[in-house]
Amino acid sequence: MRVLPDDLLEYYIGPASDVYFQRAARTLEASGLDPVVTVEYFCDREGVLCGMNDVLEVLGRALGEGDEVWALPEGSPMAAREVVMRVRACYSRFGRLETAVLGMLASCSGWATAAREVVDAAAGTRVISYGARHVHPLVGPIMEYSATVGGCAGCATPLGAQLAGLPAPSGTMPHAMILIFGDTVEAALAFDRHMPEDVLRIVLVDTFKDEAEESLRVAAAMGERLRGVRLDTPWERGRVTIELVKEVRVRLDQAGHGQVGIFVSGGLSADRIREFVAADAPVDSYGVGMAISAAAPIGFTADIKEVDGMPRTKRGRLPGVALAPRLQRIR
Amino acid sequence: MRVLPDDLLEYYIGPASDVYFQRAARTLEASGLDPVVTVEYFCDREGVLCGMNDVLEVLGRALGEGDEVWALPEGSPMAAREVVMRVRACYSRFGRLETAVLGMLASCSGWATAAREVVDAAAGTRVISYGARHVHPLVGPIMEYSATVGGCAGCATPLGAQLAGLPAPSGTMPHAMILIFGDTVEAALAFDRHMPEDVLRIVLVDTFKDEAEESLRVAAAMGERLRGVRLDTPWERGRVTIELVKEVRVRLDQAGHGQVGIFVSGGLSADRIREFVAADAPVDSYGVGMAISAAAPIGFTADIKEVDGMPRTKRGRLPGVALAPRLQRIR
Amino acid sequence: MRVLPDDLLEYYIGPASDVYFQRAARTLEASGLDPVVTVEYFCDREGVLCGMNDVLEVLGRALGEGDEVWALPEGSPMAAREVVMRVRACYSRFGRLETAVLGMLASCSGWATAAREVVDAAAGTRVISYGARHVHPLVGPIMEYSATVGGCAGCATPLGAQLAGLPAPSGTMPHAMILIFGDTVEAALAFDRHMPEDVLRIVLVDTFKDEAEESLRVAAAMGERLRGVRLDTPWERGRVTIELVKEVRVRLDQAGHGQVGIFVSGGLSADRIREFVAADAPVDSYGVGMAISAAAPIGFTADIKEVDGMPRTKRGRLPGVALAPRLQRIR
Amino acid sequence: MRVLPDDLLEYYIGPASDVYFQRAARTLEASGLDPVVTVEYFCDREGVLCGMNDVLEVLGRALGEGDEVWALPEGSPMAAREVVMRVRACYSRFGRLETAVLGMLASCSGWATAAREVVDAAAGTRVISYGARHVHPLVGPIMEYSATVGGCAGCATPLGAQLAGLPAPSGTMPHAMILIFGDTVEAALAFDRHMPEDVLRIVLVDTFKDEAEESLRVAAAMGERLRGVRLDTPWERGRVTIELVKEVRVRLDQAGHGQVGIFVSGGLSADRIREFVAADAPVDSYGVGMAISAAAPIGFTADIKEVDGMPRTKRGRLPGVALAPRLQRIR
Amino acid sequence: MRVLPDDLLEYYIGPASDVYFQRAARTLEASGLDPVVTVEYFCDREGVLCGMNDVLEVLGRALGEGDEVWALPEGSPMAAREVVMRVRACYSRFGRLETAVLGMLASCSGWATAAREVVDAAAGTRVISYGARHVHPLVGPIMEYSATVGGCAGCATPLGAQLAGLPAPSGTMPHAMILIFGDTVEAALAFDRHMPEDVLRIVLVDTFKDEAEESLRVAAAMGERLRGVRLDTPWERGRVTIELVKEVRVRLDQAGHGQVGIFVSGGLSADRIREFVAADAPVDSYGVGMAISAAAPIGFTADIKEVDGMPRTKRGRLPGVALAPRLQRIR
Amino acid sequence: MRVLPDDLLEYYIGPASDVYFQRAARTLEASGLDPVVTVEYFCDREGVLCGMNDVLEVLGRALGEGDEVWALPEGSPMAAREVVMRVRACYSRFGRLETAVLGMLASCSGWATAAREVVDAAAGTRVISYGARHVHPLVGPIMEYSATVGGCAGCATPLGAQLAGLPAPSGTMPHAMILIFGDTVEAALAFDRHMPEDVLRIVLVDTFKDEAEESLRVAAAMGERLRGVRLDTPWERGRVTIELVKEVRVRLDQAGHGQVGIFVSGGLSADRIREFVAADAPVDSYGVGMAISAAAPIGFTADIKEVDGMPRTKRGRLPGVALAPRLQRIR
Repeated sequence: MRVLPDDLLEYYIGPASDVYFQRAARTLEASGLDPVVTVEYFCDREGVLCGMNDVLEVLGRALGEGDEVWALPEGSPMAAREVVMRVRACYSRFGRLETAVLGMLASCSGWATAAREVVDAAAGTRVISYGARHVHPLVGPIMEYSATVGGCAGCATPLGAQLAGLPAPSGTMPHAMILIFGDTVEAALAFDRHMPEDVLRIVLVDTFKDEAEESLRVAAAMGERLRGVRLDTPWERGRVTIELVKEVRVRLDQAGHGQVGIFVSGGLSADRIREFVAADAPVDSYGVGMAISAAAPIGFTADIKEVDGMPRTKRGRLPGVALAPRLQRIR
Repeated sequence: MRVLPDDLLEYYIGPASDVYFQRAARTLEASGLDPVVTVEYFCDREGVLCGMNDVLEVLGRALGEGDEVWALPEGSPMAAREVVMRVRACYSRFGRLETAVLGMLASCSGWATAAREVVDAAAGTRVISYGARHVHPLVGPIMEYSATVGGCAGCATPLGAQLAGLPAPSGTMPHAMILIFGDTVEAALAFDRHMPEDVLRIVLVDTFKDEAEESLRVAAAMGERLRGVRLDTPWERGRVTIELVKEVRVRLDQAGHGQVGIFVSGGLSADRIREFVAADAPVDSYGVGMAISAAAPIGFTADIKEVDGMPRTKRGRLPGVALAPRLQRIR
Repeated sequence: MRVLPDDLLEYYIGPASDVYFQRAARTLEASGLDPVVTVEYFCDREGVLCGMNDVLEVLGRALGEGDEVWALPEGSPMAAREVVMRVRACYSRFGRLETAVLGMLASCSGWATAAREVVDAAAGTRVISYGARHVHPLVGPIMEYSATVGGCAGCATPLGAQLAGLPAPSGTMPHAMILIFGDTVEAALAFDRHMPEDVLRIVLVDTFKDEAEESLRVAAAMGERLRGVRLDTPWERGRVTIELVKEVRVRLDQAGHGQVGIFVSGGLSADRIREFVAADAPVDSYGVGMAISAAAPIGFTADIKEVDGMPRTKRGRLPGVALAPRLQRIR
Repeated sequence: MRVLPDDLLEYYIGPASDVYFQRAARTLEASGLDPVVTVEYFCDREGVLCGMNDVLEVLGRALGEGDEVWALPEGSPMAAREVVMRVRACYSRFGRLETAVLGMLASCSGWATAAREVVDAAAGTRVISYGARHVHPLVGPIMEYSATVGGCAGCATPLGAQLAGLPAPSGTMPHAMILIFGDTVEAALAFDRHMPEDVLRIVLVDTFKDEAEESLRVAAAMGERLRGVRLDTPWERGRVTIELVKEVRVRLDQAGHGQVGIFVSGGLSADRIREFVAADAPVDSYGVGMAISAAAPIGFTADIKEVDGMPRTKRGRLPGVALAPRLQRIR
Repeated sequence: MRVLPDDLLEYYIGPASDVYFQRAARTLEASGLDPVVTVEYFCDREGVLCGMNDVLEVLGRALGEGDEVWALPEGSPMAAREVVMRVRACYSRFGRLETAVLGMLASCSGWATAAREVVDAAAGTRVISYGARHVHPLVGPIMEYSATVGGCAGCATPLGAQLAGLPAPSGTMPHAMILIFGDTVEAALAFDRHMPEDVLRIVLVDTFKDEAEESLRVAAAMGERLRGVRLDTPWERGRVTIELVKEVRVRLDQAGHGQVGIFVSGGLSADRIREFVAADAPVDSYGVGMAISAAAPIGFTADIKEVDGMPRTKRGRLPGVALAPRLQRIR
Repeated sequence: MRVLPDDLLEYYIGPASDVYFQRAARTLEASGLDPVVTVEYFCDREGVLCGMNDVLEVLGRALGEGDEVWALPEGSPMAAREVVMRVRACYSRFGRLETAVLGMLASCSGWATAAREVVDAAAGTRVISYGARHVHPLVGPIMEYSATVGGCAGCATPLGAQLAGLPAPSGTMPHAMILIFGDTVEAALAFDRHMPEDVLRIVLVDTFKDEAEESLRVAAAMGERLRGVRLDTPWERGRVTIELVKEVRVRLDQAGHGQVGIFVSGGLSADRIREFVAADAPVDSYGVGMAISAAAPIGFTADIKEVDGMPRTKRGRLPGVALAPRLQRIR
């Protein structure tokens, strides 16, 4: 993704572009029209801008000498209807990229904005995005990258971590592994035996037994090698409650395992995390899925505001360039 | 997408897969464990199943002789928590595909389900999905394919149309083209002059003038070659209202242009379409964006239900194979 | 109305008075009873007092020497259940006027109170009352007078303006006139040609074309003689929006017509005006109809509180004169 | 009102008419324009049409030979946005009457519609409108007439009764009379002594004592000459309750005064009357004020639909004559 | 309670009676007044009548020859404001019992009515009332008796069971016992060893371990002697969910313990039980506490309706005996 | 109640105790288990602690040498889930008392908490609890005692007053007495004649006549001996309104009876009292029934937290003794 192959540009302006841009291009060309236009891109609600780096890379390939681009930096907060990018160039150079440009910004900003709300709710406790499983795998790692732009401290796929510039992806162990072993303690010991040292020993403790009981068994078996337990109680058992976290904390401490952290996951939303925070639940890390990965995209719109230097736009929009002092000149 | 390259399978089980599946795989292999497991996949809410064709193609590459798969067909309605697929195979063969399999089903079923609601609201009038601009371009055409599985009659990108098996993508003309021409009638005549005959002459009529006035101007200029007008009034002008559609219809008819259809777009949701239908608004086709493209994914879960033929699952789930008579044996 | 003819007093105590006051009068007279009574008049909810001037004129004709009247001045704010007038006189002199006195205060105070809310919402921008068309023509001008008591800067009928002490009524031009001309510019030029100079040239611009386009056409045709445009977009086109006002302002300014004001009308309420104000919409004047003219009357009640100087009243009310220091002695 | 003096027509087209109609008239005349126009009048919500008789009388004076009028009859139910009148004539003949025509229909239809709802709620029990005191005395009797068009069986002023074609206005006795007498029984006996026989003996029983006690005292004193008691308990004592009506009925019956009816008044609305009806409260007549007299007017609009026989109207409306088969040809 | 000691009557008319009844008694006696009065007792809302048996026993002791009593039977449904008892006797015989009589009916009918709602919700599954711990122990068993009048199949205290005519109280085992043993299986085996055979072996399974795991351990240890398991999951663990019941059922069945019933308790309300029933949760018995024991009392009122045979009552009530055909003559 | 008979202890641990405590006792005894346990008691919502004095008296009889008890004092405010008592003793000494202990705290704290809310609402005006008639007479006086713990200034039964340490119960006169006399003034004079001087002369004034009229009659008849009037208007007459209180106050004052207080009763809740207070209604005392007597109990729970000095508790609770610095050592 970071290193954009030529054929991806072709893909964006061809098979992945709304067909009417191609028809417009052909009509304009046949009519001998290719004015310099100024196009402004704005969002339809407030949020965190994301996807701009990829957009600028794509545009960089498409535009030519003398063309101008202004933009807000990746990760900027943006107000509703704020202009986030302005391009001044011959229309033929970038007109057909509109679908791709808007789509990148829409998806990525939607994810980053949702992540920001969750991260703010967590009030300093680390949030890991693990929702790749809820989006198509072609964009799963991009969703994770966007979540880190919104403030997440980690994500689950190798490519996501690479895009986000993280040293490694985050992960504990799946229920499947424990089910195949048939016992949490056995699975935990095998995991500890075979994983490289840089993999954190965080054991999932809700597969077979009550979480508090299992936490104590695992801690007794692994001793100081245990770094944490993950509580992922299914909704059929009432999900992870604030009281469960507090009880596991007290029981671990009473048994001398104060070093074992508590990682919570399972249906967490910003609202639920706020409840945990308000109740001083002793959580070391939140794993968040749908609350980020299922975020609605943020709609972006591209409007021609000038044609050959003269203000012109469609009904309902203000002709001429908007006042947008936060934009930075890119080229 | 239909023709899956080998490296895409590698991508799915490697960089795009949650890292803990790889760690589980390594731990199990080092421990000499690779039982035959039965895994069931179910959705967390009701909807239209989509993405299954791609899933089965991916699994087809990964599984081996003797492995068994049951599934519901693409496009099936599914109840909340219904099992949509069952795989019985050695865990090592498909364990690491979980992220990709769930993600395909989640995104595609979310879009197809939203499309179904919109299409049902339209009560027989054609619905075109044009929301590729709201999702990352890597999945824009897949979103459009999913929308057609949910009942949409057309979509906007060439690849979307190809995936959906449609003869051609749908599209009218962008505001940008009309703005560059500077006059809707001129733009329409140029479009008519240069487009192949199989492209429908549907003219966007809200760029410069009141829609009713512009519709009559365009119809007068193009005569019988005009197939339709598109109303896409911006929200700054109150969006397309039921009354506008009726007025444009009456005025076109009074001027003898009964053959000109009316295509409506702009912020349409299932609720708004239901209002149009309830008021007998004379719409020939609806263009729908965010109401489909911004649909939340439907969460899917994969549960081990048997290990080496014995019922085993995690707390909260019922061990053993579920009763799922609608599943069809795939292999 | 200001100069009360004798027969209007006869009308008020006869055909327009609740018949039971005449029956009471006859019974009391036949019984030889005509004590001095003290009657207090109070409102059932807070608002702006209006109609008192007319009430005092009517009472002035009916009362005689030695009779006493206290009242709040026209336009006073009044609290819920506050006493607004007190009369001490022989009952026979004013008993039959109760229907008329209460009715004048009820209607006029209702309108003035609604106007006050609208005017407060406008936060300094002029409000014109043009709702005469929503009330019976016998009281249309009285409604307009009341609206100015509540703070409106102008009204639409000649008699309304006269009652309110305004130099002239306010008005632009009706859709009918433009429709008969068949073109807004033609109509505007004719209006300009034939109207005296003291009539403001404010042109209605939503009859045939989009308001922004029509505004520019009219401004180009009339130049500096154009004082303003009136936006009255029908609800079928989404009513006048904040964005429309801003766009028309920008386009007029870009074309060098900064002197042309914007007059907004059409279904305006205090709530909608507050939205315009909050969004800094560049409105020069609001035309308000139903939000003032359809105001519910404020109920007034007249209670005997003393009979021949002794406290006496009906169940539920406090006998004796109320503490009402804001009342002013009228006679 | 019924017999329209010439100067009232002058009043309607002059001082009571929105000034811009006069300006339009002058401009059109100076421009030599006076086409035959077709104007349609429609309401903005459903209700009972009222005021049409007066409108037709006014128009009758204004129009000339060859002019055409269609209308719905006085008292017709009308649907939202239904055309209630159509006039085809030279514009100069009736253009300036628009304010008056719309105002008559607006006020009168608002009152008639509210009355209809109250009367329907009463489910056959008589409803008397006594709200003249809540509207300006110039229109009090017109409000009462409108209430009878909506179904009321009586009203309180002599002129109201005359307009409604009733033999006499309805009324009992005011609190003032009883307060001056100082005792309800004394007042009742004096009333009985001095009123003509055709005035019903209905005595107000809540002035000094508990209503049940006073009812029995009055019935004992007047015997068979007592026709009814009026319960008008003030809100400070909890208003008239269903239980009070039942208790007074039982006590009167137990004391042998089965012939004495119960008349209820005081803050009655359609909702409260529905509660009385649902509880089988033994009420003989309801007196209703604000629920009718404070009704909001129903907005009416007049639209030119044809000019010189050609369809023409403003944006948002359908040009040409509407399908309105319920209209009756008046001239 | 069933066998009323003489001093309890003294208690009811003395220290437990509102003092003003004693003062009234003394005043009336000193004034030589002791008429025969007819008093009617009615409820202020609908429900199930309870406490009447005790009331009639108390009255039986107080009344004398010739006194008359009519009443509805214990357990009758009663409508809002329905007369449930009528006493005709000299006032001195029962006047001071009013506090006690109303209090018995109020508390008991409140409990019985709440129980009826819960029992109806359970749709045929047994409901046990175990809420004695939420009410003062002097009335705990009376609450339980009332719950059985409302339809409960069992209750927890010996006296409650005796009052209700049940062969034995219901109960499983408290958490305290298991905590002292330190292991659920050990506790269960000890219980089984030492309890008489007529005590059902129902074991509480949520003290130490996950309920499903513990159920299987207990069933394995006790075999066919195990009659049931009780799920009482604390709210800190999400309470008992429908899914937990289903999973425990499936796991017990898969392990061959189909004879083991499932008893659910913990914060159950009629609403929650309706959800269990709607979801076909395989529950054998519900234990309900607060939803019955915390029920608000139903207010009862006693009104004199006749004095010495003549209708007389206070303002607001209908004098004379009410029509109450469902009352049965008691004496 | 204060002086606990031995057999009441027997009643509490036998017939009034949940049977499973007896079964647990027998099982533990047969198994030779009787450890020292630490049990903590906590409430499920915030409120005013009441019943603790009785609980400590009961426990005092049951416990033996060396046993320890900590508790909050009677009347303490308590937070949700706060520990209000801790007992450390051999389980056999107090295990079977759990039902009684929890029940006393639950009922009494519920009533005291509701009383506190009402008393706070009255903002300094005296509140009398007269709701004994809404609870079973075995606990009526205990309810009244609890109400005084919550702040009530008086109660209605002799035993209630004795438990609360008040010099005498409060009471005026019942409607029944006035009905038997047939006239309020006669009843009041007889009451005055025959009651000891220390009984306040407060006369109920709503039985036969309007309250204002009757107040004046009674005041005229009794002169300075009249201490107060009680307004208890039935809901059929609209209950006591703020306006009624004000009117009665004004009329009494105008007639020179400024010393006569006003006592209000009838369906009063904390909300209604707040309205009276906000409106400065001149009330001297409020009589409150259901708002206190029908209060829901506050649930209390007893948890074993240590067994033989070691932390042990059930799932969901924190093992070991809670931090509860407000507890006071009782023994």
